Amino acid sequence: MKDKRIYLDYAASTPVDPAVKKAMDPYFSETFANAGALHWQGQQASAAVFKSRDTIAKAIGAQYNEVIFTGSATEANNLVLRGVLRGFRVQGLGFSEKKQKIPIGYTLHPRIIVSSVEHESVLETCRDLAASLKEASLDPEGREKEGVEVIYIPVNRDGIIDLKKLKAVLNERTILVSIMYVNNEVGTIQPISKITKIISDFRNRKSQITNSKIQIKSNYQLPITNYPLFHTDAVQAIQYLDCNVDELGVDFMTLSAHKIYGPKGIGALYVKNQKFGGDLIAPIITGGGQEYSLRSGTENTPSIVGFAKAVEINEKLKNSEAKRVRTLREYLLKGLKKINPKIMLNGSMKERIPNNLNIYFPGHLAADLLIKLDLAGVAVSPGAACSARAMRSSYVLEAMGLPHQRCVGSLRITLGRQTKKGELERFVRILKQASI
Amino acid sequence: MKDKRIYLDYAASTPVDPAVKKAMDPYFSETFANAGALHWQGQQASAAVFKSRDTIAKAIGAQYNEVIFTGSATEANNLVLRGVLRGFRVQGLGFSEKKQKIPIGYTLHPRIIVSSVEHESVLETCRDLAASLKEASLDPEGREKEGVEVIYIPVNRDGIIDLKKLKAVLNERTILVSIMYVNNEVGTIQPISKITKIISDFRNRKSQITNSKIQIKSNYQLPITNYPLFHTDAVQAIQYLDCNVDELGVDFMTLSAHKIYGPKGIGALYVKNQKFGGDLIAPIITGGGQEYSLRSGTENTPSIVGFAKAVEINEKLKNSEAKRVRTLREYLLKGLKKINPKIMLNGSMKERIPNNLNIYFPGHLAADLLIKLDLAGVAVSPGAACSARAMRSSYVLEAMGLPHQRCVGSLRITLGRQTKKGELERFVRILKQASI
Repeated sequence: MKDKRIYLDYAASTPVDPAVKKAMDPYFSETFANAGALHWQGQQASAAVFKSRDTIAKAIGAQYNEVIFTGSATEANNLVLRGVLRGFRVQGLGFSEKKQKIPIGYTLHPRIIVSSVEHESVLETCRDLAASLKEASLDPEGREKEGVEVIYIPVNRDGIIDLKKLKAVLNERTILVSIMYVNNEVGTIQPISKITKIISDFRNRKSQITNSKIQIKSNYQLPITNYPLFHTDAVQAIQYLDCNVDELGVDFMTLSAHKIYGPKGIGALYVKNQKFGGDLIAPIITGGGQEYSLRSGTENTPSIVGFAKAVEINEKLKNSEAKRVRTLREYLLKGLKKINPKIMLNGSMKERIPNNLNIYFPGHLAADLLIKLDLAGVAVSPGAACSARAMRSSYVLEAMGLPHQRCVGSLRITLGRQTKKGELERFVRILKQASI
Repeated sequence: MKDKRIYLDYAASTPVDPAVKKAMDPYFSETFANAGALHWQGQQASAAVFKSRDTIAKAIGAQYNEVIFTGSATEANNLVLRGVLRGFRVQGLGFSEKKQKIPIGYTLHPRIIVSSVEHESVLETCRDLAASLKEASLDPEGREKEGVEVIYIPVNRDGIIDLKKLKAVLNERTILVSIMYVNNEVGTIQPISKITKIISDFRNRKSQITNSKIQIKSNYQLPITNYPLFHTDAVQAIQYLDCNVDELGVDFMTLSAHKIYGPKGIGALYVKNQKFGGDLIAPIITGGGQEYSLRSGTENTPSIVGFAKAVEINEKLKNSEAKRVRTLREYLLKGLKKINPKIMLNGSMKERIPNNLNIYFPGHLAADLLIKLDLAGVAVSPGAACSARAMRSSYVLEAMGLPHQRCVGSLRITLGRQTKKGELERFVRILKQASI
């Protein structure tokens, strides 16, 4: 009998839970009407969207209208980064230096702070915002007028961000801090509540600063003291960790359905105090005004319903699955060490979600290991799967200061709800046979 | 026995075809891996995405890599409008006037031309681009530096755009023309090929213009003669009309799955000569680099597969359904006129897709009619369903120059694959009983 394949890439994507599928099914061909339509069928769809929004909101301790559905977590991350910058500009806000002649059209850049190990949807968007706005400038003298300054906070060898550095780079021009709750490659849990404390201390101190060099230029009277805003990408966190937005103290939080046994193509952004468009964030996709005008487009009813069901199931299983998967992971790590004592774990063991292992196999290349294991029936990842079929050195491991060999010789092994002890035994056997 | 409800709002959304649903099903919980993952399961998903891309490309006469999947048609429209403007700026292009002292930082605005009856995802995005970029300017002297000028082409009483006006407003600064193939409210078919001819004539003439007042400022050597680019929103067209991109001569085309019995939450933008990011369009959602770097985010495999299946089925049924539905529509229109000779058809009868009726019921308000009919079991629309549960006067009918009473007293009735003659008979009976 042929053995079934072993899937250990749950951090890249998860199978849709049968109960989620069942919940979605009636919304494809029965309750299919446009949720924006005013007739009975439209109202049925609209009610399902409302109920789903409320389910997800409750799971994170939010109000229903603070949950904005998007087409993916990548879109949610783009919405918060681009949207907060746009919100800032649309409000007519800007900075300039006091006591200095300001050249025409010149303003100081708003600052965005992120960690150096964020998901690519955050890092690429930061690069894009900084670069494209710079290129957009057509000032004949080549001065950059409308850029955004991005600061990347380093992480230590465990993958935890440097809080002192964060404190040091927060300034009056900082409009947004975006730090992921859990890293997608090494599973490291960032100290979100501590970051919140640092940011809110800064906000309080800022309102007392009198002799600041920086002057806030505003066309209107505005809640400028709300800045810096704080966003966390909780895509990899919500499966095992509590994501109550009040306890975390965040202003924005990104979620994804397909990482928690829900459908692909649906994500969400929690937007604190969202009031029909709000003041602090502007949409990046405009049109019919759906999602409180923060994300236009016909509501994706089946996927929204599936997302809510996935969250509901996840909340029930969270603690028991965390425990079960942690035990399996300890078992696997022991097994791996036994067959090859030279392997090394990347990232903190303590501050780590329970389903993640990121292992350095000395003397191997991740690219080779991946192919060997794939041929032997095991699916693992060389790192972030989102990077569109490209095999590169892991920028996360690089940011953690690990040597190059280790960055190109490590695999991400992520367990999930379908993972059984027998599979892990087989996986260890396969590695042993291949002398890995 | 209770009669089944009568759904006549197919232009707002359609039920997923059972064959489409069946095609999607294996991709939720079986072939569920991330299409970006390098292992076997990932390759299975990736192959399904590739095959689907190719199916849709073939149906419109395009290359597979010219089809970019998005989370909705609204997103596709945003991508082309915002993306072409961004592409223009990222390339470092701009305009200024010859023989005139240019104030520092001042450039002439690029121009975007649209019809006044475009879908809200185009019109709102144009408003947003014009407004937010204006507000973004922090020039202390209040000059608008980085705006975009939007020109709205009027339509005649039939809903057809004014080609003379289009010719007149095309200028050297025009970067994009966006005219929908078929209007979503009145079903009017725009003369796309004629528009293409006008634009390509202008492009040819432009390259010969020598004494232009306008100077193109460019940081690089660029294919500036490609402008103006031409986009058509074919969301309402593809169900019944040929959408071969070469014959239409368009540079961009928007498609949607849920208007052709495919799933919600998936759209596509055709991008002519798209070469891994291309030169002329920049992404609005960045991250892992999926969709040839034009739209990041994990591929929505089930919905992409469903979209392709819907297109495949649609191509087969296109001609027969057009004929069948046209006959039913003529039957319905006759029936309506018989019970109320005062009703009037809005929009061209000749240049109209076969499933659309837009009818003025003198002496009634669309809002009241909708509720009455809904209670009697009939689902119709007061106009665009995308406008998030708001009941307004139809801007499309207003643009056609119809009097206010007519704009607030008209209903859109759209037929579809499930529409049977018996339903239409019942619908006419219901209207008669209600003295509408």
